Amino acid sequence: MKYTHLLTNETARTLYDEIRDLPVVDYHCHLSPKEIFEDRPFDNVGEVWLSGDHYKWRLMRIAGIPEEKITGNAPWKDKFLSYAKALEDAPGNPLYAWSHMELQKYFGIKTELSSATAETVYEEANRMIREKQLSPRKLILQSNVETVCTTDDPADDLRWHGKLAEDGSFPVRVLPSFRPDNALMLVKDGFREYVDALGKAAGIQITDLHSLKEALRRRLDFFVSAGCRIADVGIPYFPDRIGTEEEADRALRKALGKDPSFREGFMAYLGHMFVFLAGEYKRCGILSQIHFAVERNVNSALFASVGPDAGGDTAGDPVPGRDLIRLLDAEAVSESLPETILYSLNDAILPELGSIAGAFRGVSLGAAWWFNDHESGIRKQLQVMAETGALGRFYGMLTDSRSFLSYARHDYFRMILSSVLGEWFERGALSYENAERIAKKVAYLNAREAMSERNG
Amino acid sequence: MKYTHLLTNETARTLYDEIRDLPVVDYHCHLSPKEIFEDRPFDNVGEVWLSGDHYKWRLMRIAGIPEEKITGNAPWKDKFLSYAKALEDAPGNPLYAWSHMELQKYFGIKTELSSATAETVYEEANRMIREKQLSPRKLILQSNVETVCTTDDPADDLRWHGKLAEDGSFPVRVLPSFRPDNALMLVKDGFREYVDALGKAAGIQITDLHSLKEALRRRLDFFVSAGCRIADVGIPYFPDRIGTEEEADRALRKALGKDPSFREGFMAYLGHMFVFLAGEYKRCGILSQIHFAVERNVNSALFASVGPDAGGDTAGDPVPGRDLIRLLDAEAVSESLPETILYSLNDAILPELGSIAGAFRGVSLGAAWWFNDHESGIRKQLQVMAETGALGRFYGMLTDSRSFLSYARHDYFRMILSSVLGEWFERGALSYENAERIAKKVAYLNAREAMSERNG
Amino acid sequence: MKYTHLLTNETARTLYDEIRDLPVVDYHCHLSPKEIFEDRPFDNVGEVWLSGDHYKWRLMRIAGIPEEKITGNAPWKDKFLSYAKALEDAPGNPLYAWSHMELQKYFGIKTELSSATAETVYEEANRMIREKQLSPRKLILQSNVETVCTTDDPADDLRWHGKLAEDGSFPVRVLPSFRPDNALMLVKDGFREYVDALGKAAGIQITDLHSLKEALRRRLDFFVSAGCRIADVGIPYFPDRIGTEEEADRALRKALGKDPSFREGFMAYLGHMFVFLAGEYKRCGILSQIHFAVERNVNSALFASVGPDAGGDTAGDPVPGRDLIRLLDAEAVSESLPETILYSLNDAILPELGSIAGAFRGVSLGAAWWFNDHESGIRKQLQVMAETGALGRFYGMLTDSRSFLSYARHDYFRMILSSVLGEWFERGALSYENAERIAKKVAYLNAREAMSERNG
Repeated sequence: MKYTHLLTNETARTLYDEIRDLPVVDYHCHLSPKEIFEDRPFDNVGEVWLSGDHYKWRLMRIAGIPEEKITGNAPWKDKFLSYAKALEDAPGNPLYAWSHMELQKYFGIKTELSSATAETVYEEANRMIREKQLSPRKLILQSNVETVCTTDDPADDLRWHGKLAEDGSFPVRVLPSFRPDNALMLVKDGFREYVDALGKAAGIQITDLHSLKEALRRRLDFFVSAGCRIADVGIPYFPDRIGTEEEADRALRKALGKDPSFREGFMAYLGHMFVFLAGEYKRCGILSQIHFAVERNVNSALFASVGPDAGGDTAGDPVPGRDLIRLLDAEAVSESLPETILYSLNDAILPELGSIAGAFRGVSLGAAWWFNDHESGIRKQLQVMAETGALGRFYGMLTDSRSFLSYARHDYFRMILSSVLGEWFERGALSYENAERIAKKVAYLNAREAMSERNG
Repeated sequence: MKYTHLLTNETARTLYDEIRDLPVVDYHCHLSPKEIFEDRPFDNVGEVWLSGDHYKWRLMRIAGIPEEKITGNAPWKDKFLSYAKALEDAPGNPLYAWSHMELQKYFGIKTELSSATAETVYEEANRMIREKQLSPRKLILQSNVETVCTTDDPADDLRWHGKLAEDGSFPVRVLPSFRPDNALMLVKDGFREYVDALGKAAGIQITDLHSLKEALRRRLDFFVSAGCRIADVGIPYFPDRIGTEEEADRALRKALGKDPSFREGFMAYLGHMFVFLAGEYKRCGILSQIHFAVERNVNSALFASVGPDAGGDTAGDPVPGRDLIRLLDAEAVSESLPETILYSLNDAILPELGSIAGAFRGVSLGAAWWFNDHESGIRKQLQVMAETGALGRFYGMLTDSRSFLSYARHDYFRMILSSVLGEWFERGALSYENAERIAKKVAYLNAREAMSERNG
Repeated sequence: MKYTHLLTNETARTLYDEIRDLPVVDYHCHLSPKEIFEDRPFDNVGEVWLSGDHYKWRLMRIAGIPEEKITGNAPWKDKFLSYAKALEDAPGNPLYAWSHMELQKYFGIKTELSSATAETVYEEANRMIREKQLSPRKLILQSNVETVCTTDDPADDLRWHGKLAEDGSFPVRVLPSFRPDNALMLVKDGFREYVDALGKAAGIQITDLHSLKEALRRRLDFFVSAGCRIADVGIPYFPDRIGTEEEADRALRKALGKDPSFREGFMAYLGHMFVFLAGEYKRCGILSQIHFAVERNVNSALFASVGPDAGGDTAGDPVPGRDLIRLLDAEAVSESLPETILYSLNDAILPELGSIAGAFRGVSLGAAWWFNDHESGIRKQLQVMAETGALGRFYGMLTDSRSFLSYARHDYFRMILSSVLGEWFERGALSYENAERIAKKVAYLNAREAMSERNG
């Protein structure tokens, strides 16, 4: 099978030819800079395919595969065969297309993966891994990636980013992103220990809001000096109020001092910190990403046995538009509103979000996130972005992935983008020239510009 | 008119030919086992068409038809003619397709129903009713139905199911379903009287939670011994907490003892009972259905004059995902989570539900329910099921109907299913073999397996 | 470019030919009757295009145009060129189609508007304005408008409507609509001053609920005598309870008496007044419109600098269905339910609304509102209206606009309507005759009938 079924019209093919070979700026992912630096060759396709990929684990559970063959101790081959069996029942799931695109892109295999073909595919892919000595860097280079933005904690020393920058042999920019989730999660076990670690990283003792902010500021400056162009947050809470300096300080002190009443101040703290961080991002001229409407680790038994990032996360209830408005308005009023990208895991409210984004300069909708990252979800995102804003200003696709195979998702996206613009052109809704211009901006140019180094 | 417009591509026709004659397993409906047993021949098409069918009543009200000609004492012919007039303005409403499919399937009539044709259609259909002596069993047999699961209260003695099982002349399995809504609706008038009746049916006096559970357990065992393979709940409430044994017991005792403060404990009771019942269903190896986001009898005047199930129900506000997560997690943690099918009458949250279902083994999305049971709603359900789970594991269509004509809805569904899979195949998204395999599973095999007798 | 890309099939073209020249009944807009009466010729296309059109302003902000060139003092030409630049990135936004349709319809210009063509287009359009001496009335007449319903405050003296009615030279009916938002917004600054003005207009001193109702009643009678056929409300609040006479009176007295605790009674007041007003509309035999799920002026800085209706409004969170049900049921029970049209700016809940509307006689969904007024939003509205009700009873399109160019939106709508019905016919879902019948009802006949004069 040749996975070009996402190209739905003649013009789509022409447009795709124009953008398929543009470099990839993957401005949001969860790749490990350590693994990129070490560049250890892969052992077998089961490992490349299934280690750490909770999208695939989830599908296997849905298909009734026992945990042993998912995250347990079964041999990689058993796991791969089980995955093939699960996939059989899952056409229409993005994994169905991604899996075949990955087989084709990285292993040259065009067979439909199924119980019947799994064994042959497994051997064939392994032969390719051995022959080409496939490794993280090879997959990245083969994918024509120009820039990778990893996701990093402010307390991280970014040593692997440093080594990669020093290492002249790898031409891809691997940049850190600033994601201070741990500094925001007052209510999470281990918060005090985290704050200590953050203080150490910043060379400052954190005892109150003032010193916490100073520590974050120093770490952000360090990140920016290491090439950071983008920040992020992705916690399962959204502030329903904007606390004052005093309220936030009080909540933080209580949390640090083990006074259990700190929980009452959590939302005030969170709102205050969102605005503070936004102002810092604006000061540094970097983009801000807000990921919301997510629930984490909802299946307690699964969490207890396998841990986080195991397939137990879900879309959350919609964040009230009023809460988002309150936040953006507080940032705008205090001139702390940076370029901001909004990602809701619950995309039922996408049009509402689009209308809110359009009321604040520099705020826009992000790419279809996670459970929405399938053909209809991407189409919906492109459409709502177009209907409530300006499609030509979209920052475009990202992998959001832990797997080195996931660059196939950029191909997936570019085909869908080409199809949408192609349909519009063929119906007479815009000129071909404008369609091509916008395809290039969204596929590459906008992200490249946003991730480029800036002056001052 | 020939109602094949739901087949949108060439492959759809081929696929539909493969599945159109598969038997029907109608695992959720509201047919009366008494009427099936008695098998009284119908008198006229107005009666078959309009008695009890609140979908049709609602459309007539929307069209401004006076109540007299809907649920009042007007002659059946007047009612039928009024319905035809109402239908004229309603293309795109599923009733438009269903009505024509029913006319074609059961009466061989291919005319477009309208004010102009209504009289002729009425006479022609009546002639057919008289000639063929159409009756409930004849309609069921003609529809190639293999299994019917009715919807039954735990206090029901299932006498008509028993008579049908004894009656060798009717080859269709008519199985009871366990729907304990009345035992859950603490807040409904008549709850105490209901509990008495339930106790009598179970041969036990219900005075507290312990005895209530014992009664339900006995009735469930009785239902299972009578062939019950599936349970259900469909109340306009969803628990926002899981009460402890003590809390639930207290609320129940208060309700039985006429202490008005029982209302405070309703949610705790409800949550506790949901988990208890889930565990019982798991013990018996039967499926659990949860219907939610529904409002009942919202139009007080209509309710007062016509009663329940009269067209005065609506989709309700979304059930918070957090409440659903809490419930499923409580069941999973206590190893009380049976195979569970989720139906939301508000389908704005379908993708959120799909992502939640995928985090718990054995939980999946149900068929497009009621107001969503139209072409776009069915397509949406198939798509979300595919995108967030595995379409090949879908239990498929059900009529959810009180009318013996409603088996046409299975044809409707099978055409749409064929069209979706056909489109995917024609675009190159999967092989024809896999499309056909999945079509058969979803149209028939999955439901047959789920409703088959199991070993202890 | 010829903006017929909205016609997606052959039958659509045939149907559109049948309805394109039907008159326009614009039963909801925000045109100024004064400007219509005065009929001042336009000066340049920048002014016609951009003065007061916050849809366009918003897009310019999204594109990063400085405020100076949007609502500031930059020359009209600069503003027009900036708009063209912004539009370039916005295919898929309804403004992209509308702008080109407006250029074509009123200025005979078929060029694609862009940075490159903007200057030529500007000059060409200005030449047309000068040659034809384009003015409000000319644009209205050229658009084949039969009836315009403006949006008016109950305290308005309707003098311009009166002058227009007296002026025999203008054949278009310009009718007032009754929109008592200010009388409902107890919580808005200036409420007391407004109530004084309302009292003066009614010739009555308003001191309590009784006198307020009497004043509103008198003003409504006056509006109806001036041709008013429709009422409206469009505030960013929806009542979550229905207050009694006493509760509403108490809240009002407190508000008039400057007792700050009046806020507690706002919802009770609002609910009570909604029911009261509905009864009055029913008494007068006029239609009631309810616009909801809207947030106003969310960007404080923008509001402070540019004011209201400047592009700072957004879709609001969904109004709970239960609140809507409570209101409609209260109206139905008290026999105060007029023909009612529901508009939600948040259209995620459209199917829920459709199911609620269908439970109450005479309640129906309104046209896709504002941020939803694009091709996919209109298609969704038509589809949900069809699926949950009867499409043939839809009142159809309205401009909701402050711009005299916006009649192009009726063409836009009629093309989409033709396409939807054409697709259905070509698939065999209804006869051509019925498709054409319904197209005419929805494009014109239903609105004409609703806005026609009624007997007593």
